[in-house]
Amino acid sequence: MITVLSGGVGAARLLAALVTIFDPAEVDAVVNVGDDFVLHGLTICPDLDTITYTLAGRVNEETGWGRRGDTWRTMSALGDLGGETWFALGDQDLATHLYRTQRLGEGATKSEVTREIAARLAVPITLRPVTDDPLATIIDTEFGALDFQDYFVRRRHDVAVSAVRVRGTEAARPAPGVLAALHDATRIVIAPSNPFLSIEPILAVPGVRDALRDRRTDVIAVSPLVGGRALKGPAARLLDDLGFAVSCEGVADVYREVVGTLVIDESDASVAPAIRARGMDVRVTTTVMANPDHARALARTVLA
Amino acid sequence: MITVLSGGVGAARLLAALVTIFDPAEVDAVVNVGDDFVLHGLTICPDLDTITYTLAGRVNEETGWGRRGDTWRTMSALGDLGGETWFALGDQDLATHLYRTQRLGEGATKSEVTREIAARLAVPITLRPVTDDPLATIIDTEFGALDFQDYFVRRRHDVAVSAVRVRGTEAARPAPGVLAALHDATRIVIAPSNPFLSIEPILAVPGVRDALRDRRTDVIAVSPLVGGRALKGPAARLLDDLGFAVSCEGVADVYREVVGTLVIDESDASVAPAIRARGMDVRVTTTVMANPDHARALARTVLA
Repeated sequence: MITVLSGGVGAARLLAALVTIFDPAEVDAVVNVGDDFVLHGLTICPDLDTITYTLAGRVNEETGWGRRGDTWRTMSALGDLGGETWFALGDQDLATHLYRTQRLGEGATKSEVTREIAARLAVPITLRPVTDDPLATIIDTEFGALDFQDYFVRRRHDVAVSAVRVRGTEAARPAPGVLAALHDATRIVIAPSNPFLSIEPILAVPGVRDALRDRRTDVIAVSPLVGGRALKGPAARLLDDLGFAVSCEGVADVYREVVGTLVIDESDASVAPAIRARGMDVRVTTTVMANPDHARALARTVLA
Repeated sequence: MITVLSGGVGAARLLAALVTIFDPAEVDAVVNVGDDFVLHGLTICPDLDTITYTLAGRVNEETGWGRRGDTWRTMSALGDLGGETWFALGDQDLATHLYRTQRLGEGATKSEVTREIAARLAVPITLRPVTDDPLATIIDTEFGALDFQDYFVRRRHDVAVSAVRVRGTEAARPAPGVLAALHDATRIVIAPSNPFLSIEPILAVPGVRDALRDRRTDVIAVSPLVGGRALKGPAARLLDDLGFAVSCEGVADVYREVVGTLVIDESDASVAPAIRARGMDVRVTTTVMANPDHARALARTVLA
């Protein structure tokens, strides 16, 4: 059994490749919920949804998020009303948020709702929010403390960051099955997600970081950097802003406590010795999931 | 200035006719909010929306509610998820509920949100929810106490009713401008809406019934019955279930305290003497708004 700590798009692509070479029934994704937020009264869980749509074969492949062939009738009418349209919600995608919000209002947990949606859309792996309790990633910036989506989507992460905090960790408990999935896995994979924005909020839930520390030699992380740069998103900038080297060495420093092996791209092979010197094993492969063959090659590497 | 106590479809049609023969800037609609409810986390105000869409020229003329040319992408996807689809929400219509819910969450009042939406859609009259406070029409039935939409939409009002109650009236205050609109109007019109389900929840807001009593000779109501039957909806059945005559006489009895003049259809002319005997004036006309000419004729009658 494999457990994958997952953010959104990058994790979804790795998971989609994994299930082509490994029994999906043996794959467990523990998913970040620090990005979850309420807009228009709806509870939106971007990482859970991206993974759900991707594993259901319904994701918009071009963007990596949202549903393929979705339409924008509601957003267009909302724009006519002068409403908040900075977070794009397709008409079919909206159904997921309506369903989730209704069920949460009825007293269901996020885990239960996630399982219900996954079952309906025939997602073949087990999806778990890392916690059913409220968690919010807060970004301290030159403009003050920003909610995650304000920072990430509305301001397009074009902001200097002084700290990333996770609010709610004191009261948060791991969702049912999360600690067992970490304990029982033959391998724990950290997806090529943003270490600060996607993975740290997972580790911050009490018990999760300790569980990984206990399994450190079985924990393999995929570096989100390629050639010392982020393919997309603010991983490189955040390493710099937060005082780490902007390279896979910096990623290794962030993950040092919990990761036994770091997978880096061929273009970063020169820093492998420096990472090994930190007491971390290294594997070098193509980490860019530019096509299904490359994604499968990466999946094979994390399983090897 | 004219103030119209309004439910949904029937009131919207009368208002649409009124503004063709009277200055819209002088028309004030005080609208029922006892039907308002939360579904999928969204605050939905069916009567306000029906009037808004109708007066904005965007209503679905066939149904009388919802937006013309609307699509059903979200509802269809919600059905695939096993969600609650018994209350039909079109994709464009959804934008109204998203907008409202977001603004209410930001602290805006229902009056403010109503005004904002009406302004964006160029509604030419003044629309006021009767109250900004929570109000809920509850139907006591053979199946116990039902929420309004459960009774009306989900069970299609095919249920024996023992009482109609309005929850929240003790704490409710009239929305800003409502009492002034009743005080200052040269005429107060009660639209051909359901007396129990649409008008009573308006009257039940403290101060409103008294305001109408004070103006009784200037209050003119349009009977929702035609030929002793309801054109649509449960008005006739409710009169019977609640112990009133199933005729315009029964309507007159319901409205006796607050209405000086009842407008009845030609097909009900025979009961005019019995209504006059109750101390209420009667006007006889065609109350069926089957086409714009008939609707305008009715509008002229209530203004005369």
